[in-house]
Amino acid sequence: MTLPFRRVAIVGVGLLGGSLGLALRKRDRTVHVRGVGRSVERLELARRIGAIHEFELERRDALADRDLVVLATPIEHILATLGALGRLAPGAVVTDVGSTKRAISARAREALPSGVAFVGGHPLAGKEAAGVEHGDPDLFVGAPYVLCSEAGDALGRMSTLVEGLGARPVILTPEEHDRAAAWISHLPQLLSTGLAEVVRNQTGEPAKLAALAGSGFRDMVRLAGSPYAVWKGIFETNADNIDHALASFVSEIESLRRELRRPEIERTFERANGFYRTYRAKA
Amino acid sequence: MTLPFRRVAIVGVGLLGGSLGLALRKRDRTVHVRGVGRSVERLELARRIGAIHEFELERRDALADRDLVVLATPIEHILATLGALGRLAPGAVVTDVGSTKRAISARAREALPSGVAFVGGHPLAGKEAAGVEHGDPDLFVGAPYVLCSEAGDALGRMSTLVEGLGARPVILTPEEHDRAAAWISHLPQLLSTGLAEVVRNQTGEPAKLAALAGSGFRDMVRLAGSPYAVWKGIFETNADNIDHALASFVSEIESLRRELRRPEIERTFERANGFYRTYRAKA
Repeated sequence: MTLPFRRVAIVGVGLLGGSLGLALRKRDRTVHVRGVGRSVERLELARRIGAIHEFELERRDALADRDLVVLATPIEHILATLGALGRLAPGAVVTDVGSTKRAISARAREALPSGVAFVGGHPLAGKEAAGVEHGDPDLFVGAPYVLCSEAGDALGRMSTLVEGLGARPVILTPEEHDRAAAWISHLPQLLSTGLAEVVRNQTGEPAKLAALAGSGFRDMVRLAGSPYAVWKGIFETNADNIDHALASFVSEIESLRRELRRPEIERTFERANGFYRTYRAKA
Repeated sequence: MTLPFRRVAIVGVGLLGGSLGLALRKRDRTVHVRGVGRSVERLELARRIGAIHEFELERRDALADRDLVVLATPIEHILATLGALGRLAPGAVVTDVGSTKRAISARAREALPSGVAFVGGHPLAGKEAAGVEHGDPDLFVGAPYVLCSEAGDALGRMSTLVEGLGARPVILTPEEHDRAAAWISHLPQLLSTGLAEVVRNQTGEPAKLAALAGSGFRDMVRLAGSPYAVWKGIFETNADNIDHALASFVSEIESLRRELRRPEIERTFERANGFYRTYRAKA
């Protein structure tokens, strides 16, 4: 397979950046991948693993010969980096893998020179372990991969790239992405965190409770194990949508409390069953 | 292995009752198992599968020669049946597999004759499919199995039975059980149902949302597929505890909303992470 970029830089070679490097090299042996970062030790590890051909420490002009620059650091760092990418090749495409898209897209519009296109990206793939040592060339296979950009040549090439990695491109505006992500990612996370908090608070006997918990509880509390570092930038850049989703959820819980002793709750279960069936059929 | 009961009746030979019959017969080939129910067709299927040796339709004296009677029907039916078990052998033990324990234990105290002991039971095992045709002799292996009774001979024999099935007996009062179940089973169910409802309500584009949903959403919404039939009797017999858990959860969500733009949320995540680690270590 020939991917639509020849010289790629990955800024931040952790789990996502490293997996991307492995995936690019697995799919197209003629692509050249340069890692850019701050830790020689981590970059050297990424090179030994085969996620990148070579590396540079963050410095001006480390990206000047690249036709694709992938920002794969936390959201806060992506926002800070966009204004300091140094010289970029005319016609180059810049993308990112951040979990929110409005703030990053706005910052890219301000910061990038006119000859360089920005296509926001968000691969909905990951695993619990962090670091390039857990990188997986097939991490993106079958996963949705959101792309945010005006239609155009750069978006077309990024769609081809994403399909080349085995992922499913989903084209959204940054506003659509952040609203949807609040409902299907950020709200579920906070429900799981909240569940852990109330169960922790309500009893002096966590051992007895844990002994009783079945697979339902296990699924519902798994996200409560997510580290805050992943969420800090998300809360900073999507608080309005998340607050709206949480407020709607509170209304829903109050409605369930009213229905708890009434026959209406059967219809609510049937609607939720129907949603679940539709979701599973499409997912 | 010799189990501490010789002649068992299972009233209601569905997934749980059928799995119990298969498990008893696998562990102790000398135990005799009689199925009791209302559908000859289903009972005949249970017999062919090997979950029971023989069956009787529900009638007076179908249990008179049994030293263990297991009520494995929905909660509503267990409550109705406890007063209509007909003649029971002196020294017989009656147990059940219902998901709440206060109402059933109280009803058993009223309804059973003095020579018969009641030990409430709740195996925290199951699967999504219903019916004896999905029965599994190892369904209870490694699962917690709550027993509710005063200490005594009947409780001791039930604990031995439960261990014989490979499950872990957890001794609780009915009040402790129902309170704990509200937190670790009934609250998670309603959070999942509520999540399905709000996501369904908030968008005309479920296909786009489903395409974006990752494994976190999938886990959090799985319980929303549970059929209401399983939950009806639980809501009818544990609404007070569930309402309290839902109200506490609303307070927690309101607290998370306040913290969303503040540094305090980092501590909340750390506490939830800690709870999750402790829970996983014990589960």
